[in-house]
Amino acid sequence: MRQGKFITLEGIDGAGKSTQLAWIVELLQRAELQAVVTREPGGTELGERLRAVLLDKSMTMHAETEALLMFAARREHLDKVIMPALAQGQWVISDRFTDASFAYQGGGRGLDTGKLEILEHWVQGALQPDLTLYFDVPVEVGQQRVSQIKAADRFEKERGDFFQRVRAAYLDRARQFPGRIKIIDSSQSLAEVKAAVEQTLQPLLNHG
Amino acid sequence: MRQGKFITLEGIDGAGKSTQLAWIVELLQRAELQAVVTREPGGTELGERLRAVLLDKSMTMHAETEALLMFAARREHLDKVIMPALAQGQWVISDRFTDASFAYQGGGRGLDTGKLEILEHWVQGALQPDLTLYFDVPVEVGQQRVSQIKAADRFEKERGDFFQRVRAAYLDRARQFPGRIKIIDSSQSLAEVKAAVEQTLQPLLNHG
Ligand SMILES: Nc1ncnc2c1ncn2[C@@H]1O[C@H](COP(=O)(O)OP(=O)(O)OP(=O)(O)O)[C@@H](O)[C@H]1O
Ligand SMILES: Nc1ncnc2c1ncn2[C@@H]1O[C@H](COP(=O)(O)OP(=O)(O)OP(=O)(O)O)[C@@H](O)[C@H]1O
Ligand SMILES: [Mg+2]
Ligand SMILES: [Mg+2]
Repeated sequence: MRQGKFITLEGIDGAGKSTQLAWIVELLQRAELQAVVTREPGGTELGERLRAVLLDKSMTMHAETEALLMFAARREHLDKVIMPALAQGQWVISDRFTDASFAYQGGGRGLDTGKLEILEHWVQGALQPDLTLYFDVPVEVGQQRVSQIKAADRFEKERGDFFQRVRAAYLDRARQFPGRIKIIDSSQSLAEVKAAVEQTLQPLLNHG
Repeated sequence: MRQGKFITLEGIDGAGKSTQLAWIVELLQRAELQAVVTREPGGTELGERLRAVLLDKSMTMHAETEALLMFAARREHLDKVIMPALAQGQWVISDRFTDASFAYQGGGRGLDTGKLEILEHWVQGALQPDLTLYFDVPVEVGQQRVSQIKAADRFEKERGDFFQRVRAAYLDRARQFPGRIKIIDSSQSLAEVKAAVEQTLQPLLNHG
């Protein structure tokens, strides 16, 4: 078993991923574990260039094009950041990963799950995160939280029903992989969500 | 059978694709056929942005990332340019298409052909060009022709053996699909190549 763990954070916009990512880093530091923090789409020079294209509101593209670009950025991310860090025994915490493709391109855009599974296997082979924290909030709560802090990107300008489908797809996926994906009720207070995250992480920290 | 035909031009850099593309457009005009002229990677706004990334000499990327980006640009190209034009009965002439992925990412970079076939099917389903003209020249001839006209991009700065593998992969693919891919000896004089192109195109023009 490898020493470093690969943890991914998922959830709709405003669910609290970035907030809890900082908390996870703190928990790892207390346990004297070194962590590489990264995000998708992005994480590499190429990935950030693709992120700019993907989030550009003036851009239009076919849902399948979007999926291929997400997986292209992911292939690079695995090669340049995730795999080398894990190989060195470091922990990797990624703000979004493949479950987001199933939620946004699959649920949100309506792309066939089977086609996404083909790309998942093409790009990752058998590699999966050791743990995925899915931060679940009602769409209105997430939207209220983000509307206060930044301008909408190409995904965030989608309408409410888009995010309802994204949330439903995340929940489906969590039911499909209950061993890997843990659902955190992120509509709770910040203190409560942090406590839930700490509790969910505990087994990994103990048996790391 | 659809009215407009889908023709693709292939060959290593300097083989004469752009030169013969102009000649094909002239032949179609003489036959009073409307043609949409396009190229890969590129052909759409997104595609041209990806082309800039793909040809950027300062960029490094995994061969699989490169393949995914090529097919992402292609997916968009099919959706925005190729399929709509064919649906309207227009002819489409593309300077490079999927055979280039088999030649450059497959032959040149050594990517597994099976993995490329998965992407080909994912992106195109059963769609194939009606005719592919593969302009075959020795690597040295192609390189001599282009070195006189422009600075090298990320692919063109590869060494001679890279292009030997690209050429070999093109020839393999032409042998695999002899009905669709016609080999034109492009080391001949311009007049001879033009005559060969005209002759190869004739059956399509007559039965269009
Ligand atoms: N449990 C919580 N209760 C109340 N507010 C919260 C909670 N968690 C996060 N927030 C606030 O909600 C906003 C969005 O949180 P955060 O940026 O962590 O979400 P995110 O999932 O990373 O969103 P994005 O996908 O847009 O990056 C922030 O202002 C954050 O302080
Ligand atoms: N049969 C030929 N004999 C001699 N010169 C030729 C012949 N065909 C093309 N050329 C010249 O070779 C150069 C490269 O040709 P061209 O630009 O058509 O190649 P290309 O395949 O489009 O290359 P690239 O892949 O770099 O776009 C041009 O200067 C062109 O005039
Ligand atoms: Mg965030
Ligand atoms: Mg050319």
